[in-house]
Amino acid sequence: MAIDSALAPASPSAVDAEREPGEDSPQARMAAAKEASRETARLTSSDKVRALEAIAAAIEADAAEIIAANSRDLDRGRSQGIGDALLDRLRLDEKRVATLASAVRDVAVLPDPVGQVVGGHRMPNGVALEQVRVPFGVVGVIYEARPNVTVDIAALALRSGNAVVLRGGSAAKESNTVLVRIMREALDGIGISPEAIQSVDDFGRDGAKALMHGRGFIDVLVPRGSASLIETVVTESTVPVIETGAGNVHIVLDESAPEDWAREIVVNAKVQRPSVCNAVETVLVLRPAAERLVPSVVDALQQSGVTVHGDDVVSGLASSVVPATEEDWATEYLSLDIAMKVVDSLDEALAHIRTYSTGHTESIITTDSRNAERFLAEVDSAVVMANASTRFTDGSEFGFGAEVGISTQKLHTRGPMGLSELTSTKWLARGAGQTRA
Amino acid sequence: MAIDSALAPASPSAVDAEREPGEDSPQARMAAAKEASRETARLTSSDKVRALEAIAAAIEADAAEIIAANSRDLDRGRSQGIGDALLDRLRLDEKRVATLASAVRDVAVLPDPVGQVVGGHRMPNGVALEQVRVPFGVVGVIYEARPNVTVDIAALALRSGNAVVLRGGSAAKESNTVLVRIMREALDGIGISPEAIQSVDDFGRDGAKALMHGRGFIDVLVPRGSASLIETVVTESTVPVIETGAGNVHIVLDESAPEDWAREIVVNAKVQRPSVCNAVETVLVLRPAAERLVPSVVDALQQSGVTVHGDDVVSGLASSVVPATEEDWATEYLSLDIAMKVVDSLDEALAHIRTYSTGHTESIITTDSRNAERFLAEVDSAVVMANASTRFTDGSEFGFGAEVGISTQKLHTRGPMGLSELTSTKWLARGAGQTRA
Repeated sequence: MAIDSALAPASPSAVDAEREPGEDSPQARMAAAKEASRETARLTSSDKVRALEAIAAAIEADAAEIIAANSRDLDRGRSQGIGDALLDRLRLDEKRVATLASAVRDVAVLPDPVGQVVGGHRMPNGVALEQVRVPFGVVGVIYEARPNVTVDIAALALRSGNAVVLRGGSAAKESNTVLVRIMREALDGIGISPEAIQSVDDFGRDGAKALMHGRGFIDVLVPRGSASLIETVVTESTVPVIETGAGNVHIVLDESAPEDWAREIVVNAKVQRPSVCNAVETVLVLRPAAERLVPSVVDALQQSGVTVHGDDVVSGLASSVVPATEEDWATEYLSLDIAMKVVDSLDEALAHIRTYSTGHTESIITTDSRNAERFLAEVDSAVVMANASTRFTDGSEFGFGAEVGISTQKLHTRGPMGLSELTSTKWLARGAGQTRA
Repeated sequence: MAIDSALAPASPSAVDAEREPGEDSPQARMAAAKEASRETARLTSSDKVRALEAIAAAIEADAAEIIAANSRDLDRGRSQGIGDALLDRLRLDEKRVATLASAVRDVAVLPDPVGQVVGGHRMPNGVALEQVRVPFGVVGVIYEARPNVTVDIAALALRSGNAVVLRGGSAAKESNTVLVRIMREALDGIGISPEAIQSVDDFGRDGAKALMHGRGFIDVLVPRGSASLIETVVTESTVPVIETGAGNVHIVLDESAPEDWAREIVVNAKVQRPSVCNAVETVLVLRPAAERLVPSVVDALQQSGVTVHGDDVVSGLASSVVPATEEDWATEYLSLDIAMKVVDSLDEALAHIRTYSTGHTESIITTDSRNAERFLAEVDSAVVMANASTRFTDGSEFGFGAEVGISTQKLHTRGPMGLSELTSTKWLARGAGQTRA
C-alpha cells in the first residue's frame, strides 16, 4: 500500500556503473557520509547534545518553511489520489513540527552508548582486553512517506555517533528536502560536518538501490515501513540489514484465561492503536474456553468498532462474525479487523503460530503456570508474553527512551531497538610486547 | 584459490522452483533441520553434553572408516592436481581423527549459553521483562575442503542448541558424507533427532544456493574460507550472514617503537602461522624510525624465511627486498611474504589502513601513549592493538574456549566468535492482566 514505486526492480546498471569522481551521485553522497562518520564517531557526548539542540532549534525556527514544503507534498498527494490515512501520516502542522523538535531534544538527553565498556579481562600473558561500544559508522534508512522519520532517525543516528544516509518515500520529497537542509545547516552552524546527514531522495530508484548495494559505505541498513518494503530491502541488499517491523501478532486464550483479562487485553491490543505492528491480528481460543470466552470477547471487540473474522465455531457462538478464510490467518490488518479461531489444544495454537507468525510478539492469557511457561519457552518470537497486552512491545515502554524500530530478525538485536542497538563494538588490546607462543 | 566451483553464479531457477513435498531436496533437508531445531532448542545442557559425548565416541569408533573415505578424497584430489597445501588441509589421519573427537569433548565442557539471562527489569506497571539467550534455530555454514570444520561447527551449533545445515567443499565430499552419517547415527542412538545435522553437499551448486536463499529455514549463514567465497556468500545471500575472516592485517611501527618489540612482534605475527587470517600482511614504518628499524626488522624477517615486498625507501635501507606494487598493499598473502612501506606520519598510516584494511586486526608498536590511544580510537577494525602480536585475535586466546570464526562485520558480533555468538535473545514478559494506557 505505502510501497514506493522507487523500490520496484530496475536495472542495476545505472547504480553499479562507475561514475566520474566529483560527480554528484548516490555513491558520492554515501562516500561523503563515510568520511564524515569518522568525525561523528569521535564527537564527545556534549558535542552530540549540542548538535541535537541546534537541530531542534532550527526546526522550530524554520517551522513555516517546513509546513509550506509539506503543503506542496500534500497537494501533490491529493492530486495523485493518495488515501486519507497516508495523507495523515505525511502531514506536518505547527503542532507536529513542535513535536519533531521536542523528539530531538528527548534523544539528546538519552545516555550516550558510545565508549561504554561492555566486557574485558586480562589475558594470562598480561595483555589487557576491553570490548567497547563504537558507532556503526554509516546507518542507511529506507522508509516511506513519513517526514517525522527523517528527523527521528537522523537524531538517533547522530546521538549514537553515526552518520546517516536517508531515503524517504517520494510522496514526502519536498518536506524531506527542507528538513535535511535545515539539519545540515544546523550542524554546519556549530562546526560539525553537515555531510554526516545525507539524503538520496532526489536520485529516486537509484538512490534506494545504491543504499542496498552500498558495500564499503553503508555499515547497516534499516528498512522502516510495510512488509513488502522490508521484503524488498532484505532480499535485494548486499549490505547488512536489520529487518524490522511486520507483526502478525497472536493472542492465545487458554482454558484458564480469566474473562476480564481476556476482554481487556484483546481489546487493548487491537483497539488502542490498530495501525501499528504490535497490535494483535489473530486471537486463538482453546476449545474448552470457547463457549465461555468467545461471545464475551467478540462483544467487547464489536462494541469498540472491530470487525471479527471468525472460523465456523466462532460464527456459531457470536453474531455479526465475518467468515474467515485462509488469507485472514496470514493478514496483518493494521485496522479495526481481527481474526479469531478456536483450536483444540495448546499444541494446535503453537503450530498455528509457527505457521503464520512473523516472529514479532505473541501473548497467552492464562492462570495455568505450566501453559504460560510452555508458551514462553516454545514460541519463537522477539517478545513472548503471558497476561499482558502485545502493545507493550515498544522501545519507550521497555524503558529505552526512544525506538529505532522493532527487530524481527535474530541477528544483532531482537525486539525493540534503542540507541545501543545502533552501535557495534570493537576490541582493544593493550600489551607490552607480547607475542604468541 | 580454494574457491569451490559450486559457488560460481548459476541460474537460481533450479533452487527457487517449488518442489513436490516429500521429494529429497536441499529445501526438504533445511525444513527437516528447522523442525529438529525446535527439539534442539529445548534440550537441557546435560542432554547436549550427552549428544556431544556420543558423537566423539562414534568418531573414535569409526576412525578407520573416516580415514578410508578421506583417502578416496585425497586420491581424487591428487588426480585432479590439487596442491599440497590444500591436500594437507583435507587430510585426516589417525592423529587428526583423534583430535576431531577431543575437539568435540572440548566443546561439550563449555558453559551452555542458552537460557542465560542477559537483562531484565520490571516495567512501571509491574510487567516483568526478562531478556534471555536462545538458539538461533538453524545455522547454515558454507566452507571449503576442510573436514574438521564439518565436525567443529556441528559440535558448536549443537552445544548452543542449534540445528545445522552444512555445505562443505566438494573435494572433501567422501569424508564429509561419512562424518555427517556418523554424527547423525550418534544422535539417533541416544534418542535425539538426527535431522538436527544436515548436509547439502550432494546437491552441489544447488545446495549452496539453497542455503543462501533459505529464508524461513536458515536463521544465520556463516561462510568460512577464502575472501572470494565470503564475498560470494555475502553478495548473493538473502538470509542474514555473519561475514568472517579475511584479514589484510597491519602493524604500524611508530617513531618510538622499541626495536626488540618491533622485531619480535612483526616476526611472530608473520611467521608463527602465516596461513591464517590474523597473520600480519603489511608493516607501516614511520619515517623518523625507518633508518633505525627497517634494516633490523627486515633482517629478522628474512632470517625466518620471509620475502619482504618493500617500497623504494625500504629497498634503500635493506637488501634482497622485492619492489612492492600497488597490489601488494591490498594482498592477504597468507604465506611467508610481507609488504613494508615507510609513511610520513601517523595520519598517513591511518589513511593507508582505511584504504586497504579488511577491518580484522591492526596493531601499533609504540611507547608514546598519545599515539597508542589515537590508534586504538581511530582504527575501525574488529580488534585494535597496541604493543601485541596480531596473532592474539583468536577465540581461544580471548578465553572463549572455542571459535566459530572471526567476524569482520559490525552487525551482531565483531571479532572472535564464541558459543554465545551462536545465540540470539528473546524477551519474556510476565504480566497480570496489564493493558497499555
